Amino acid sequence: MRIGFDYTNMMASVLGPERGISEAELEGLRPRTEAIHRDLMARRGKGLLPFYELPFDKGPVDDVLKLAGELCRLFENVVVLGIGGSALGTLALFRALCPLHHNLLARKERGSGLRLFVLDNVDPVGISETLDLLAPAETVFLVISKSGSTVETMCQFSIAQDWVSRRVGASFRDHFVLITDPVSGPLRKLAVDEGYRSCSIPEGVGGRFSLFTPVGLLPLALAGVDIRALLAGAGSMADRVTLGDFRENPAYLNAALQYLAYGKGLHIAVMMPYSDRLRDLADWFRQLWAESLGKKVDLEGNLVHVGPTPVKALGTTDQHSQVQLYMEGPFDKVVTFLSPDDYGCDLTIPSLSAASGLAYLEGHTLAELIRSEQQATAVALTKNGRANCTLSLPAVTPEAVGALVYMLEVQTLFAGGLFGVNPLDQPGVEEGKDFTYALMGRPGFEEKKEEFSRAFHRESRYVL
Amino acid sequence: MRIGFDYTNMMASVLGPERGISEAELEGLRPRTEAIHRDLMARRGKGLLPFYELPFDKGPVDDVLKLAGELCRLFENVVVLGIGGSALGTLALFRALCPLHHNLLARKERGSGLRLFVLDNVDPVGISETLDLLAPAETVFLVISKSGSTVETMCQFSIAQDWVSRRVGASFRDHFVLITDPVSGPLRKLAVDEGYRSCSIPEGVGGRFSLFTPVGLLPLALAGVDIRALLAGAGSMADRVTLGDFRENPAYLNAALQYLAYGKGLHIAVMMPYSDRLRDLADWFRQLWAESLGKKVDLEGNLVHVGPTPVKALGTTDQHSQVQLYMEGPFDKVVTFLSPDDYGCDLTIPSLSAASGLAYLEGHTLAELIRSEQQATAVALTKNGRANCTLSLPAVTPEAVGALVYMLEVQTLFAGGLFGVNPLDQPGVEEGKDFTYALMGRPGFEEKKEEFSRAFHRESRYVL
Repeated sequence: MRIGFDYTNMMASVLGPERGISEAELEGLRPRTEAIHRDLMARRGKGLLPFYELPFDKGPVDDVLKLAGELCRLFENVVVLGIGGSALGTLALFRALCPLHHNLLARKERGSGLRLFVLDNVDPVGISETLDLLAPAETVFLVISKSGSTVETMCQFSIAQDWVSRRVGASFRDHFVLITDPVSGPLRKLAVDEGYRSCSIPEGVGGRFSLFTPVGLLPLALAGVDIRALLAGAGSMADRVTLGDFRENPAYLNAALQYLAYGKGLHIAVMMPYSDRLRDLADWFRQLWAESLGKKVDLEGNLVHVGPTPVKALGTTDQHSQVQLYMEGPFDKVVTFLSPDDYGCDLTIPSLSAASGLAYLEGHTLAELIRSEQQATAVALTKNGRANCTLSLPAVTPEAVGALVYMLEVQTLFAGGLFGVNPLDQPGVEEGKDFTYALMGRPGFEEKKEEFSRAFHRESRYVL
Repeated sequence: MRIGFDYTNMMASVLGPERGISEAELEGLRPRTEAIHRDLMARRGKGLLPFYELPFDKGPVDDVLKLAGELCRLFENVVVLGIGGSALGTLALFRALCPLHHNLLARKERGSGLRLFVLDNVDPVGISETLDLLAPAETVFLVISKSGSTVETMCQFSIAQDWVSRRVGASFRDHFVLITDPVSGPLRKLAVDEGYRSCSIPEGVGGRFSLFTPVGLLPLALAGVDIRALLAGAGSMADRVTLGDFRENPAYLNAALQYLAYGKGLHIAVMMPYSDRLRDLADWFRQLWAESLGKKVDLEGNLVHVGPTPVKALGTTDQHSQVQLYMEGPFDKVVTFLSPDDYGCDLTIPSLSAASGLAYLEGHTLAELIRSEQQATAVALTKNGRANCTLSLPAVTPEAVGALVYMLEVQTLFAGGLFGVNPLDQPGVEEGKDFTYALMGRPGFEEKKEEFSRAFHRESRYVL
């Protein structure tokens, strides 16, 4: 079970010196990569980067599995209330590791898995249509917020509590599991004071690095994913992504390539799985890459306004939507293909009418076709001078996906070092939150409300 | 029913001269906008831009409704076999105008609508899991390809034919409707020779402009969308988007603003609906914008490598994923918000625990919250010097969505004029297709196969 990484089509020997990366450029980064590696390992040694240890921490997994077993006997549906890092990993791995039409299947066809819904927005339409669909008595909600005060999630929680208690009465608390900080915050206080079931997000693990905590593990276990295999896969990647030589470490190497490509003006990072199952992994990665690297100031306080823009695409589908732009538009993209070696099933193409000119496809399989399209797109992009690389998974299994997730997390942390920014914070979202508080009438935000009014109700607006 | 367009936060008076657009810059475009307008109207007058007339062409709609009525009596499920422009509009409007959990509802809860599935990839997993879910006797397939020879769609067709005929025998043709060119191509020939039901895609209407033909209308009608209202909405926009004065025409004006922003280095066009229903409209627009404007050469044959990169985001969800980057990263984006004035339903926020610090939210509604978050994000982006504008819909109805789609189609065509490229072709995807033909053994592509082999099997590969 080994993730492959082919970066031939990133290199100057193939793309030319302007947009390709030379051996000299890569090797020129070596001293910095060694310093970043030492720094990461030192911080890890001090317990400051606990996400590294998550695949090896058996205690929480046993607890999650015990709780999941109990909830599976009691309920038919699980609804995640969470946003950003509290939702994206679950959505990505639910798509990757459960049947694509999981929620449409009868329970026995789903194995023991519950139907899974993720509410990661506060659109009244999405929330009311989802609640209308479900029977309160059969539904358990996972309320996920590290701080325990995420506005969107707490509003959902309040609505869901009301909805459940109207139907089941005093036992409504049994329909909620609070996943939050181990000691502090309003959700933890509620769990302690009112006896809700709860799980802990280990201290020091930020939202976008929390997939291997109960944040991701509990909903995925409830849906029927083998979370031990997932963690075993992540753990199997640990040796490779802690190698000090960046040329041997796929996480470090890909970070270095992406960083050098950014320096050549390739500011858009496209992740393009050729796999229906891996489609939403690109959304999970979008948060990881954008929120970690998109920063105004570097670690020394210099104004840098840096950060690649991650874009999601799907092969072959987006060949008929985005690839025209990727082939012919500005030279501003790196495409990273995700490609399974084994799709897990296959279909043979029966006869096609001679008139279609496609009779030659008869007897080939869809797996051959989709793999050929991926390779054809890679070669055509390269011929057009477009940087691309391929991460290949032996198959779309919990082990392989776990390994890939762990690799991409380390890659992001390492890229933070290369870009010289703090990959663990997100200061840029505070201003918008403050304006929201002001608009919703939070005490203490009256000045912010006035600032909003001045900005929003300008004398000269341009409106059509 | 009027689409609103607020572009205050695009302007230099708000953003400053470097990234904002001045009155002088806008007015400087006036002569070109007039020339492009005259050219479009002249081509329309000659019948060369037939998509303009689609909202007014009642004949095909009557035919589609008659056919839809018949199929609704015979079947429970409709499966679209199509890719790119044959799928994206249907997916976007199915999401916008049907219940979000449509396929999970009992038939009477869906009105008369069939369950709708769209197969727009050739991953064997997606196709086999979808077929496994369905009863052949209850399923109708819409095979959509203008040329009648799209590889992905024809392979799906062949597999679906085989699957249906094994179960229902000789009457398998009754389970297919071919939507294709009115006279030529393999699918048309099949329809004529073997008596399949069929619909026509009017000549001169390209895939990404085909939503208001049977390509989009038939599947949407089968799912229960009021397609007359959809077309009436599109038609109601026609007067506004054919106004010659670009400052009065929202399609022309937005094209001009996006074009000027591109000229200031804002190469990424984010579409960010604050609405679960409007989420996938951004995917439909991604194809329209990317494939139409992403071009290597301009109309005079100069090498330009031009084209904005469209990106999909969802509010409030992506505030917890992408907005950090939008606020603090490079100055390379324009954000276009889509915002419904009326969400169509609402939920009041019940009490929140005092400990959460959110008790002030009690009694407010989710519609207030999501609208506040959109406005807060817009003001915070503006304060950070980030260009943004808002398209507002009175409500997410067939009329409003129809109007928006028509506006964005005209906007794209007009933007083609400003960028000086042909918005109706996609020459850049041919090379990848040719390599795929070669890999799959199509006669006549032997040289291409050798070229592929040289490119793919290089002596020095970089693989980890």
